[in-house]
Amino acid sequence: MSDTVPSHPAPLRIALAGLGTVGAGVIRLIETNRELLARRAGREIEIVAVSARDRSKDRGVDISRYDWEDDMGAMANRDDVDVVVELVGGSDGPALTLARNAIANGKSFVTANKAMIAHHGLGLAQEAEGAGHALKFEAAVAGGIPIVKGLREGAAANAIERVYGILNGTSNYILSTMEDTGADFADVLGEAQAMGYAEADPTFDIDGIDAAHKLSILASIAFGTELDFANVSTDGVRRILAADIAQAASLGYVIRLLGMANVEEADDGTTRLFQRVHPYLVPKNHPLAHVDGPTNAVVAEGNFSGMLLFQGAGAGDGPTASAVVADIIDIARYWDSEGEIDPPFSIPVAELDKTMPAETGNRSGKAYLRFLVADRPGVLAELAAAMRDAGVSIESLIQKGAEHTGGTDGSVLVSMVTHEGEEAAVEKALDMLSGSPSLTAPPLVMHILKQ
Amino acid sequence: MSDTVPSHPAPLRIALAGLGTVGAGVIRLIETNRELLARRAGREIEIVAVSARDRSKDRGVDISRYDWEDDMGAMANRDDVDVVVELVGGSDGPALTLARNAIANGKSFVTANKAMIAHHGLGLAQEAEGAGHALKFEAAVAGGIPIVKGLREGAAANAIERVYGILNGTSNYILSTMEDTGADFADVLGEAQAMGYAEADPTFDIDGIDAAHKLSILASIAFGTELDFANVSTDGVRRILAADIAQAASLGYVIRLLGMANVEEADDGTTRLFQRVHPYLVPKNHPLAHVDGPTNAVVAEGNFSGMLLFQGAGAGDGPTASAVVADIIDIARYWDSEGEIDPPFSIPVAELDKTMPAETGNRSGKAYLRFLVADRPGVLAELAAAMRDAGVSIESLIQKGAEHTGGTDGSVLVSMVTHEGEEAAVEKALDMLSGSPSLTAPPLVMHILKQ
Repeated sequence: MSDTVPSHPAPLRIALAGLGTVGAGVIRLIETNRELLARRAGREIEIVAVSARDRSKDRGVDISRYDWEDDMGAMANRDDVDVVVELVGGSDGPALTLARNAIANGKSFVTANKAMIAHHGLGLAQEAEGAGHALKFEAAVAGGIPIVKGLREGAAANAIERVYGILNGTSNYILSTMEDTGADFADVLGEAQAMGYAEADPTFDIDGIDAAHKLSILASIAFGTELDFANVSTDGVRRILAADIAQAASLGYVIRLLGMANVEEADDGTTRLFQRVHPYLVPKNHPLAHVDGPTNAVVAEGNFSGMLLFQGAGAGDGPTASAVVADIIDIARYWDSEGEIDPPFSIPVAELDKTMPAETGNRSGKAYLRFLVADRPGVLAELAAAMRDAGVSIESLIQKGAEHTGGTDGSVLVSMVTHEGEEAAVEKALDMLSGSPSLTAPPLVMHILKQ
Repeated sequence: MSDTVPSHPAPLRIALAGLGTVGAGVIRLIETNRELLARRAGREIEIVAVSARDRSKDRGVDISRYDWEDDMGAMANRDDVDVVVELVGGSDGPALTLARNAIANGKSFVTANKAMIAHHGLGLAQEAEGAGHALKFEAAVAGGIPIVKGLREGAAANAIERVYGILNGTSNYILSTMEDTGADFADVLGEAQAMGYAEADPTFDIDGIDAAHKLSILASIAFGTELDFANVSTDGVRRILAADIAQAASLGYVIRLLGMANVEEADDGTTRLFQRVHPYLVPKNHPLAHVDGPTNAVVAEGNFSGMLLFQGAGAGDGPTASAVVADIIDIARYWDSEGEIDPPFSIPVAELDKTMPAETGNRSGKAYLRFLVADRPGVLAELAAAMRDAGVSIESLIQKGAEHTGGTDGSVLVSMVTHEGEEAAVEKALDMLSGSPSLTAPPLVMHILKQ
């Protein structure tokens, strides 16, 4: 690829598969910032070919100057393409086929596809390492925030003690709006869907799956462990009531859906990977407590850096395009140095640690437990007895009348915050209460973020 | 430098000049995280030689295993050194000589020296570009926060509209402590000195000079302009009273010393660079309003990314060492690719824009004005008349009695917030009041951060 005139290196040639909002955003960015990109990348960045399902759809950008490919698979075979950019989505199917073929044909590959990286990232990275070309996915995690680079490079000198953060903008929008308005989950979700902050089928977002995809990618990079999406303990925000948010507020907390990961040594001496996406109670003086709306924010705690926080827009065409094109610029800068491309997960795939998932029972912390119970004598005593018998020590307890439960069945809401203790004890207490006719709904457990 | 066995590349060999707290921190980091660094960098990172004024001083690290150089200048000439790391400080003198000689002798050069980069960064970068080696200074800006990388690479796809932030931990510690305790500046400064958060001579920190060094570096990278430290409009936090903080709070603001930069087009069509380090009023719902203590935080607003926030420890041996070693890892990863090192300021020095400083008069915004005035009839009318005659529109005005002025001369404190308007009008009003016997101290102007 080296040009004979070093001061005018050849353009980096891009094929773009997928022209949804992000694809159109990438085109708009590359055209709008064309001169700037060339200055920063040291060469022109030139879109050569594009592909999508519908050629004639109006996307607000002029695609007539690029070659059109009806079959996006053909992108991988074009001799005039250096980098294939995949913005189609889906963990398998055409996106994965394109990735494999592009890498096999000596292209660099850039994607915003968190599901594909979470499921197939290691295999693709190994193929890219073998081919000596780049596989990059900054846009797959936390939208426009350069957190993949922040961990791979910015914090590279550190053993990372924890990585955690707000990884799903839709859930955060819903929670912070519930907080501001006192509205219930279903109402805010409906509003978010109307405003375009939530999909018609919001499952991936509000059930924590999207955040789990991202967390598994961050964990692999932060800890040098193999990707392990299957073992992310995942829960979402569906069951959170306005009353939970009010209770948390009265105790000095806000509720945020967090992804949280760390490595720890198990009793048998093996290294274990802890990965959890759950709603957490976040102390109001923590930076994440001030992250509102569809914003993302990631904290990495390094053994020398201390706490590093990266915050920005977690989605949207502009921010996601910003991350996609940052990857392209990185490739452009180092394009001539064949074989000197960093491993996609910072460490070569073959050298990543294989870890078992951590046992959670012996994790220590404080938790918020919320019960919906029948409004009759003895129920509180039953709850308190279960806590006592399981060894859960209660720091505070609030009981609220039926008007706070969001239901119509006359249930009473009882919430409590435990003292610091093992998670196993809480689990045991819940097991003891399981099936009790006093409970009108399954209990909700939220862990409290340790500072 | 290529090793014949690619899977076991040669170690990257470091010479370390300066063994103060940061130098000792770098040694501790490299020794503590040795194995991790090798995995991430793809090769061992090995300290070969060290130099400092006093060989025998106890630094809490064992330096006996490294070669000792009495003359740190000798570092630049050692054939067994790939990277010279300078942690001596000072804009000129031995640090600058070492930098020039190291680069001239084909070494990569890493420094935490913000004063030297602010004053001599362009010349050094040009020499490094010519030599085809790296000049890196992540630790020179905002301690452990990877903001140089964040701008050079993470946000590289964007035209940056503004870059601003909290760049001096000492000033931020003082302001946020005044906020929490209601104490006066002098008391908090004394306490900060006792706790090691402020130097015995705090001038560089509290008068904004340290922040101005950092801002000039950020501005050059963000906007592709030549470094222009000399034209940073700089003011510090010395004159801020507890009463100012209370007034700001009652209006919905906190006070933070911010560095702020943007480029703009002047009336004559030329590009101008605006750079200011001043105390600002920050709206309480802005992320920077929640940055307390000696923390730093930088916001970059990109035309596609939107707001990106980077936050972390702004100083300290661990965080600064984290940034220094991140630079070393970057060099290690690309060491074999001669000539493929990015320009230090992202764009080659010869291609950076030469800009005149911006005129500030036609900048539009809201401001906080505070006067200490004699407690006698007619003074308020005099102030109000000056505002009217200069065309300054007042949004709110508060007058407080003598107990709020921090002085003993019986002065009264009058503070006002203007409506959005040109800075020139405020300047004109102050000119009109200049020399008035009604004022017992020079007025204090603080701009209000626009969201």
